[in-house]
Amino acid sequence: MASSLDTFFNPETIAVVGVSEKPGNLGRVISGNLQSFGFRGIVYEVGPNGGTLYGRRIYKAVSDIPDRVDLAVLLVPARVVPDAMAECGRKGIRHVVVETAGFSESGPEGAELEQRVAAIAAEHGIRFIGPNCIGLVNRHAGLSTAFVSLDAHLQPGGTSVVTQSGGVGISILNMLASEGGGLAKMVSVGNKVDVDENDVLEYLIDDPETEIITMYLEGIRDGKRLMDLARSTDKPILIHKSNIGEAARGIASSHTAALSADDAVVDAALRQAGIARFRDSETLVHYLKALALPPMRGNRVAVLSRSGGHAVIAADACELEGLELATLPQDFLDEAQTHLRANVISLTNPMDLGDLFDLDVYEKLASGTLAMDGVDGMVFMHTYMVGPDGDRSQRLFERLHEMSLELHKPVAVHADTVAGEVSRLKQVLPGPVFQEPSDAVRALALLRDYWKADVLPPERPDGPADAGAVRAILAACRAEGRDPLLQEAMAIAAAYGVPAAECRLAASEDEAVAAAEDLGLPVVLKVVSPEISHKSDFGGVQLNLRSEDGVRAAYREIMAEVGERAPEANLYGVVVQPMLRGGRDLIVGARLDPNFGHVVLVGMGGVFVEVFRDAAIRVAPFPRPAAEAMLRELKVWPVLKGVRGQEASDVDALVEVILAIARLVTDFPEIAELDLNPIRVMAAGHGCRALDARMSLVPGA
Amino acid sequence: MASSLDTFFNPETIAVVGVSEKPGNLGRVISGNLQSFGFRGIVYEVGPNGGTLYGRRIYKAVSDIPDRVDLAVLLVPARVVPDAMAECGRKGIRHVVVETAGFSESGPEGAELEQRVAAIAAEHGIRFIGPNCIGLVNRHAGLSTAFVSLDAHLQPGGTSVVTQSGGVGISILNMLASEGGGLAKMVSVGNKVDVDENDVLEYLIDDPETEIITMYLEGIRDGKRLMDLARSTDKPILIHKSNIGEAARGIASSHTAALSADDAVVDAALRQAGIARFRDSETLVHYLKALALPPMRGNRVAVLSRSGGHAVIAADACELEGLELATLPQDFLDEAQTHLRANVISLTNPMDLGDLFDLDVYEKLASGTLAMDGVDGMVFMHTYMVGPDGDRSQRLFERLHEMSLELHKPVAVHADTVAGEVSRLKQVLPGPVFQEPSDAVRALALLRDYWKADVLPPERPDGPADAGAVRAILAACRAEGRDPLLQEAMAIAAAYGVPAAECRLAASEDEAVAAAEDLGLPVVLKVVSPEISHKSDFGGVQLNLRSEDGVRAAYREIMAEVGERAPEANLYGVVVQPMLRGGRDLIVGARLDPNFGHVVLVGMGGVFVEVFRDAAIRVAPFPRPAAEAMLRELKVWPVLKGVRGQEASDVDALVEVILAIARLVTDFPEIAELDLNPIRVMAAGHGCRALDARMSLVPGA
Repeated sequence: MASSLDTFFNPETIAVVGVSEKPGNLGRVISGNLQSFGFRGIVYEVGPNGGTLYGRRIYKAVSDIPDRVDLAVLLVPARVVPDAMAECGRKGIRHVVVETAGFSESGPEGAELEQRVAAIAAEHGIRFIGPNCIGLVNRHAGLSTAFVSLDAHLQPGGTSVVTQSGGVGISILNMLASEGGGLAKMVSVGNKVDVDENDVLEYLIDDPETEIITMYLEGIRDGKRLMDLARSTDKPILIHKSNIGEAARGIASSHTAALSADDAVVDAALRQAGIARFRDSETLVHYLKALALPPMRGNRVAVLSRSGGHAVIAADACELEGLELATLPQDFLDEAQTHLRANVISLTNPMDLGDLFDLDVYEKLASGTLAMDGVDGMVFMHTYMVGPDGDRSQRLFERLHEMSLELHKPVAVHADTVAGEVSRLKQVLPGPVFQEPSDAVRALALLRDYWKADVLPPERPDGPADAGAVRAILAACRAEGRDPLLQEAMAIAAAYGVPAAECRLAASEDEAVAAAEDLGLPVVLKVVSPEISHKSDFGGVQLNLRSEDGVRAAYREIMAEVGERAPEANLYGVVVQPMLRGGRDLIVGARLDPNFGHVVLVGMGGVFVEVFRDAAIRVAPFPRPAAEAMLRELKVWPVLKGVRGQEASDVDALVEVILAIARLVTDFPEIAELDLNPIRVMAAGHGCRALDARMSLVPGA
Repeated sequence: MASSLDTFFNPETIAVVGVSEKPGNLGRVISGNLQSFGFRGIVYEVGPNGGTLYGRRIYKAVSDIPDRVDLAVLLVPARVVPDAMAECGRKGIRHVVVETAGFSESGPEGAELEQRVAAIAAEHGIRFIGPNCIGLVNRHAGLSTAFVSLDAHLQPGGTSVVTQSGGVGISILNMLASEGGGLAKMVSVGNKVDVDENDVLEYLIDDPETEIITMYLEGIRDGKRLMDLARSTDKPILIHKSNIGEAARGIASSHTAALSADDAVVDAALRQAGIARFRDSETLVHYLKALALPPMRGNRVAVLSRSGGHAVIAADACELEGLELATLPQDFLDEAQTHLRANVISLTNPMDLGDLFDLDVYEKLASGTLAMDGVDGMVFMHTYMVGPDGDRSQRLFERLHEMSLELHKPVAVHADTVAGEVSRLKQVLPGPVFQEPSDAVRALALLRDYWKADVLPPERPDGPADAGAVRAILAACRAEGRDPLLQEAMAIAAAYGVPAAECRLAASEDEAVAAAEDLGLPVVLKVVSPEISHKSDFGGVQLNLRSEDGVRAAYREIMAEVGERAPEANLYGVVVQPMLRGGRDLIVGARLDPNFGHVVLVGMGGVFVEVFRDAAIRVAPFPRPAAEAMLRELKVWPVLKGVRGQEASDVDALVEVILAIARLVTDFPEIAELDLNPIRVMAAGHGCRALDARMSLVPGA
């Protein structure tokens, strides 16, 4: 399939369909871009009114073209796109870009038209990009199908772009041009009816001209494939996934759902696959510049600055980004001090080069510092005036970049001078240049984080898994067309190794008392009803019952209160559980995400769950190290480990629960949602227990 | 004093001291800037070797100048600065800028030199700026004393800059120039030995040419005066306070201290005084642009975009910034729809103007939308090509700015086109232009937040205040040269209206039992010792003692364990308190900040305090609404108010405690630190109780 896309990027002959001599005709802009970018193949224009363009005849129909056509670009009114597609098919064209808008994005009528176009393409074995897009660019081949003029400054390079919005794609190209970056390929996938972002991604992963892949996506079609593709390559992939509010509108039905909103899942999934996410093009710029530098293998930064103020600002930025200021050995500083003319400044890190005006000494200090074992990267901030210092400063920047490549450590350079000079430097320097001290620091932090991301294989973790028991319970639920009840959900979790609190079903007051005596007081009573999921909202829970009388009273109160608040609910009785003392409450859950499949979540429980939203998410399946990493991500991690004399919690047991849930949803894709809330984690060595469980199944599964 | 500074900015005659004909002489750059900025007064150069410059004689000594001199600028070697200052004094010069470095910033020798310079200046009644600075700029008067060339593009305007770093000052001027902003005045205060940032601020507040004041500070000399000055003006004040890690190195001795680190105090103080804080020049740019727009009086934004992708990105940015997308009435949308040529797009908010190419319709839609009651501000994103659309797009931007001024609502405009065109627009448009959709949205959010900041007077809140009782306890402590003990700290807080848990001192096992019987079981025992502040770290606390035997055992264990862990501590016995059930633990505290005086803090207590660092801070004194606002700032606020069926806490009682502490530290400045930790807040109507208190006094106070 990848090779089949190659013709899109390297056609020998192109037909631009929808060209006329009328002023404002956009088809002509496409031909203009092909001209100005230096496309080396043959271009044919097609338009019903004929005429000429660039000394070429405008053919009245595709069928009139006296040649084989590799790629057709359609920019004709939406209603005639089906005919144009059919005409391309009859001509033997197998690659088409449909740029016309007015399809599914504009309503049901357009959606129907879109389906007709897709059917016609399929009939002729045509692969097509779009509709509602600006098509593609292959800068190295001088190919562009965009109907807007592209910036002439845009150089060929290693960055490729996949975008769901033509406008955003153009913005990225403008940004690349002004930052002195270079483009390999761009594809605007539009409504992605046939070729989608994953198809293009697969092609770009194999494309030797592409070094970095940047994507702008408003929706993700097949998250699992996206993750698999990303895991298969070493090329950096940077994604702007917008439309973050799309799912916020839905009402979350469980804590797991609330804490794992679609956008949080996207965050987790991309990180799991080693994809860097960005949310504005400024961050993209920082990423692209950072990735032009060698990797940052540790956290220790040396800061050299000609301005003391910038040194302070860079040190602040290091603190905010969690970067350490490297400790420079005293003998190095003493040696360095001998190079200084005056005695005005004292060397340390950040190193204030003060009013020392010798650029050769800068270079010497920089290379000495960067070579040190305790330094993982450097920020160099150079303030200068264009007139007197211009040429020498440019040579210094060039040397710093060479130094960075030689020593294989990143040097992020901040040029503090007039804006015009900074713009010029971006075009002429071999390495990146940053406009602010904090940008340079941020670039090093991005590099550190990017290369630290450990991508793990999507492996189902081993462990207890009594699938037969689960199947039996699910079959019973399915037979009755309902979701599992509390004790069934607990039993399902237990079958996969989740320790559940003891749990007796009692259908009467007497049975409740008997169960309580059997379990030992104090106990908890919780209503059981297929219609009631949030039990405490209906008065269906009573805690800490310390006597037979208490149990009896609680049973009667629960039945009365739930009966009154939810008169339509079937009450099966209650479950009786021992009242547990001590430990900490967490939540472990899972949810079926429409894009990425099942995600597993662990989070802080109790009253603060909605206040602090402290949760970690992973797309299932995942191996043990991912479960351990989830716990370390939690803000409550220090509390779980034991802070200020507090007892440590049994995190090992919690890891087993996370893995059990990951196994369970991997084996039973029909589970829509599962909430173990709370799961009580006892002191280290004393395990944990699910105290409550709620589960829902995919309708009709 | 303000009028005395005026001569710095509007001298008729200037002497530049330290000029020579040698290549690389920096004094000449000062004269060059005066020349290129068009200074209209008279300039004299002074240098020991004489010579000429710009057709003028370089005098060999200040005393040789045959004229009155209003302002002298010294750029001579540090060691001769004292003599130069004395010479200025003898010449009758009363305003001096010392640009030379090598004073207190370089070590003890330089500090001594600095003191000599200050003494000589004082002797002659000279006010001086610096040393270690680049002096000042008055763009409207063509005055600049900087020894680096300034960007010729820098236009006169309404922004003034006070900076503690010359390099950062120059960066801000470069930024202003490239963004098309205009400068009123800049002062680089350097080591601020005489004239400091507050002196300059006071001057700029009265300066009719200054509309916005921007400051870069690495330290704050007199925080109280800074706050008072800021409260006295309507001019926006924007501050970059760097050096955020300066105090992090110290070891925090209490939760209050840990949660109110110097930088958090700066944050609180600046906001209390209506000062906007920024942390990088990018945010400064956004602020300056935003403040060129009318105020944002609500939270509802209309987004109009020519690119659907940018509309989605702007909607995301609104969500992240907490801005609402305004609901546009259907009849307006229907009416608007009739202006569209095609039916491809459907109007909503964000409004995707799609492939509608009529700029007059854009203008009509924009003005109709902005005029609506339900719209507080607008983001307009315009994608265009310079060639065909350039002039008409510029006119559209101009109209949008006029519209914004006419309707007195902000319109943040994003120009999506090649970088060169954006740079050009910044210089020619009357209003600001933003480079990214998210920047335009952020500007509206900054405007909203800036104008929402309610500045309250620094009033001591009324309420219980038995100052006599407090004085007596403090006198006793002072007499013994120690800090107040637990029960004394509790009594001090109680004297100002803080409800304290009942508290009996017991010096023996029997006394502890008697106190417990008196208070009623269960009880808590806590060790009392002047040397032990973190009692539980030494085994000095036992909770939930339910019997006489339990109390006896606890007393013995505490004495044994504390005696072993802190053998040098004097043990006065224990306090016995009733064991409280229910409620939530918070912390209320106060700390004497070296820059801003006393700050009061309220935060979440318990085991999560260090994990979530959820605290609100105010500089004392402050009136009741500030105390209420502090609680609303806390992340746990929803929990305190009662979420998901949980009982609401007695927040009114908590407000009284905060006000009590504000009164206490206002009346007793000798209190260095006070920690009520925990303060147990019971259900609404049931008050709160301080369960423990720690207090330290300013040494020698």
